[in-house]
Formats: sequence, structure tokens, C-alpha cells
Amino acid sequence: MELVQLGHGDGGALTRELITRVFEPHLGNPMLGRQEDAALFSLPGGKVALTTDSFVVKPLFFPGGDIGKLAVCGTANDLAVMGARPLYLTAGFIIEEGLPLEELEQVALSMARAAAAAGVKIVAADTKVAERGAVDRLFINTSGIGQREAEISLGAEMVRPGDSVIVSGPVGNHGMVILASRMGINPGNGLLSDCACLWPLICEIIEDFPIRFMRDATRGGLATVLKELAVAAGLDLVVEEEKIPLCREVRELAEMLGVDPLYLACEGRFIAVVPPEAASAVVERLHRFEEGRGAAIIGRLQEGSGRLLLRTSFGGTRVLDFLRGQHIPRIC
Amino acid sequence: MELVQLGHGDGGALTRELITRVFEPHLGNPMLGRQEDAALFSLPGGKVALTTDSFVVKPLFFPGGDIGKLAVCGTANDLAVMGARPLYLTAGFIIEEGLPLEELEQVALSMARAAAAAGVKIVAADTKVAERGAVDRLFINTSGIGQREAEISLGAEMVRPGDSVIVSGPVGNHGMVILASRMGINPGNGLLSDCACLWPLICEIIEDFPIRFMRDATRGGLATVLKELAVAAGLDLVVEEEKIPLCREVRELAEMLGVDPLYLACEGRFIAVVPPEAASAVVERLHRFEEGRGAAIIGRLQEGSGRLLLRTSFGGTRVLDFLRGQHIPRIC
Repeated sequence: MELVQLGHGDGGALTRELITRVFEPHLGNPMLGRQEDAALFSLPGGKVALTTDSFVVKPLFFPGGDIGKLAVCGTANDLAVMGARPLYLTAGFIIEEGLPLEELEQVALSMARAAAAAGVKIVAADTKVAERGAVDRLFINTSGIGQREAEISLGAEMVRPGDSVIVSGPVGNHGMVILASRMGINPGNGLLSDCACLWPLICEIIEDFPIRFMRDATRGGLATVLKELAVAAGLDLVVEEEKIPLCREVRELAEMLGVDPLYLACEGRFIAVVPPEAASAVVERLHRFEEGRGAAIIGRLQEGSGRLLLRTSFGGTRVLDFLRGQHIPRIC
Repeated sequence: MELVQLGHGDGGALTRELITRVFEPHLGNPMLGRQEDAALFSLPGGKVALTTDSFVVKPLFFPGGDIGKLAVCGTANDLAVMGARPLYLTAGFIIEEGLPLEELEQVALSMARAAAAAGVKIVAADTKVAERGAVDRLFINTSGIGQREAEISLGAEMVRPGDSVIVSGPVGNHGMVILASRMGINPGNGLLSDCACLWPLICEIIEDFPIRFMRDATRGGLATVLKELAVAAGLDLVVEEEKIPLCREVRELAEMLGVDPLYLACEGRFIAVVPPEAASAVVERLHRFEEGRGAAIIGRLQEGSGRLLLRTSFGGTRVLDFLRGQHIPRIC
């Protein structure tokens, strides 16, 4: 079994070999292939979105995805929820000496597939190798730029009392899959990470409906993104517990492990805020997609002071705050 | 002394605190402050350059710089040598649990200063925390976009036999500073890393002279970038050893340690290829800058087969190849 050596990161002959052997066959394209210091391209006019995300997920491979798929979808999704079509990504690899080359290849292949699904190109990359023990196997940073095609205004400041809050599918799957993997629990019944590229769904609704706010629910889960929205909008956000889509496996494991699924990370879900009269039509449109089958209206905004209020199935109301205490490191 | 905790990376309340306390005071700007998933801006038309680089340098702080300065200059320089004015950067931090907050603040401050010097804005950032032992203190990825203002064509394919090769200053300082730091050698006499932003120099020559190729000499040093150019251009590149600018301290330490300074990393030097008749004027222009004081014509291209030939001070000729064997991990 061939392993990554320190020399693979020195910028010399071995680095070139690593690129030619592992990355180019999967990620190669004319811009990346030039091996210049930067990719060069033209953009049509309009607003450009730029974002970055580092991925340190443990384990590297998990049911429904791996660090490569996560790295592409995660950054593409950050662009998508800004209403920007993901166009170009960069990839920065920090590799531990001794990582099997085969695993690196699997990751590269997975990135290539995810990039194709998202319609993005990986046009610039960088490879560093650190000595054994200085990095846990593999970290990946992806940064990306996207372009807003439509004349839209998105943001917490656009949100109004009475607006409906939609989530695009069942929440917490990714976090639960990682947690279960680490604890050696086999979730059974094919519980998979929800890791997926959201642009196809968002592209479908962004021009036809008056979307006021979008955000993907990642670290910190659904509750964190809802609380952030409430605070930023200066409104209360009331969520109906029984409307929140949750897989049975996630619900059961969460009870067993004593974690709150509303704070478990997703990697392929977003929330959207729309005027109440548009909400049903948006949800119907999302249902056309495999990844949007579980989309639902889960709550609404009202005058208030930035509180996130959960109407429980028993008729009570619970105030939810930012995540505190339930730390699951390296979830993404 | 306050230390980074795992919870600082969970995307919840502590992450917000870390951002508000450590990053915003130094790196804050209206775009970063929005805490959205991506920064949004308009670009004028023309060619856009996109690049990425991860920094894993050890130690984090060294004479003449630190990982923060390096991360900003390194990525800005990759844009600059493409002839693109660096505009916007992203920053991805991967932090080891237990890192003193004070060190993180020093790094943030240093990034802010370097960004100001380079004329770039850090508009998107991401923070991850990994458990003790999973990452060695702090890694930073920076990605950046820049804009080509001039109508220029740069690249190895533009280079012609007879063209002159210029280097912008003494080489190998950064690599030697890191090497000496690790070995506990005090280089004395103020030997500093050459880490610096190159855009001010490049901006000064790019429109006035027919530059055909530029590249910054980083990992692998001057020899690696020259060899890459020779191979890509399909020409031989002849370098005069005695013309290569080298600080006395670098020369002496290199002899003592048995390393070849031509393969030692720089972080603030670039090579430029120009028609021979323009070479002296370019060098004179570079001499106006503190960072360009040592600029010199060091060689020329000729018909050949991609060889890098070093004419030694003794009148002999040595063939230089890609770096092999002299591995100094985590130099940047």
C-alpha cells in the first residue's frame, strides 16, 4: 500500500507526481491543468459571492458521504443560499504523512462527482503534507465563487412578521451519522448523511418565488440557524415541533443518546423564509426533488425580540437558545 | 491565560464569541461583519484570478513574520504574479484546542496589517477547532480573487529564446529563517524572512514593460520555479551563479548546514521574464522599492530541452533538477 510521504508536500518532483497521479485524473480540467499560481477566467457582470469553509470531519468516510463530498457540497451550498449559482471552487489539502494514497484518490473521485452534481469546477488547488501527528489524516479547505443571476434581495433585514419558515427536508441526519459512526453504533435501515448540493433546489425556486432569506443548517443544526435568524431580524420565530421533519432513526437514536436533534448538523438542508401566501407553493416545488421530498412549513415569524420559541407537541412552549454544551467536534 | 476550547468551533454561542472577540476587532469590515454564508460584491468586467493556499508553517512566529502575515502575502502574491490586483481574500482557520487566545489575536492582527499593505480585504472566514493532538496549533487557508486590469498575456508559452530572467531580491531568506528557528540557531545580524506582499512592485512594472512570465519563488525555492519555467517553455534556462542575490547570512548558514540556498523557500520574491532590451529598466524600477533593492538579471533562456543550467563562479556548468531529497516540511 502506498502512503503519502513528507516529500509529497515540498513543492518539488514528488508534489508534481502526487498531483499528476491522484488529483488530475479526477479533478483535472484545462484551468487546473495549467499548474499556474491562480486560475484565470471571465465573469459576466452582476453580483459575485465568495465563501470559504474548512473540513475536518472525523471519520473521513461515513454512510452517505466522505470529506470530499462534504467539502464540495458545503461550500457550494454556502453560495447557493446566497442566491448565487456556484461556479468555481478551490481546494486546499492538508495531508498527514502516511495517509494511504488510495484514500486520497477516493476523496478526489468523490469531489469530482459532487462537483459535477453541483455544476461547479475545481480550478485551483494546493497540497501540503504535515508530519505524522501534526494533522489527523486529512483536512480540506474549499473556497468558492458564485454569481447571482437574478435581481433579488436576500437577508435577515428582508424578513417580515407573518412570514413563513420552510425547511427543505428532515434535519439532523448528518450529525447523527457522524455521532453513530464514532460511537460504533450501526444506525441500520440505511440512515445516511443528508450531505448534498442544494443549488438544483434553490435554482428552481429563487426566480419564481419572493424568497426573503435562505440559510443552510450546518454546524449547530436547525435550531442554531433559526435562532440566528430571529436575532438578526429582531423578531420572534415560532416553530411547531410536530411539523419539523425528522427521520425515525434520527429521532430514536437522539432519544437513546440524549442529544437534541434540532442542534445536530445537516449538510444538505436549508431554511427559506417566504411571505405566507407563497409558502405552500414553494414546498410543493421542493417536493419535486429527491432531496426536497421532506420539505415542510415549520413555523413563522412574529413581532418580538429575537426569541426562538418551540411549540411542543404537548401544547407547551420552550425557548431555544444558541447551542451550548452539546459539543460534537469535527462534525464537518 | 485563556485557551481555545473545542466549543469555540461548534458553530454556536462560543464560536460567535471567538469571532466577536478575536477576529472582528482586527479583521472586521462591513462584508465580513454581516456573518452571512458568503460575501457579496460586484466586480468590474475583465479577467478574474482565483487561487488558494494552506499554511502550516512551524513555528507559528518567526523572525520577520508569522503564519498570519504569510497567509495573506502568500495568496495575494499568487494573484499578483498572474498580473491580477489582489482584491478579496477568505480565511479558514483550523485551531488546536488549547491554543492561547492571545496567539490567535496576534495572528489576526498580523493578517490585518498584511492585508492593508497588500490592499486586500478579508471578506469571508471560517473557524474550526480540532481536539488536542489532531492539528499542530494552527493552520490557515487563504483563498483570494484578483482582477487583471491591463490587457496582458503572461505565461510560459509567451517566453522566447534570448529573454532575460530577473529575480526581485535575495533568495532563500524565508527557508533559512524557518530552518534556523527549528534548529535553535540564532542567525544573528537580523536575518529575517523575506515574507512580503509583491503587488506594489508588480503593479509598478506590469503596465510599463512587456513582461512575459512571472512566478513567485515559494516552496522549492528559486531553482524549482526556474526549472518549472524551463520545462513548461521547452527551452533551456542558463543562470549565472554569481548574479543570484544571496544574503551573506543565508550563504554562510547554508554552507554550515549543507543545504542548497537555491532550493530554499522565499515568500516575497518573484521571477520575471522580459525581452533582453527591457531587462535593465525593469530592474531599475524594482530598485525603487525596499523589497526590490536586490533585484537582478540572473540569466536567460535559450533553445534547448527544458534544462536548468547553472554557470558556476568557477566557470563550470551544473545541471539543476527539481528538488529531490532536501525536504523541509512545513516551511509555509
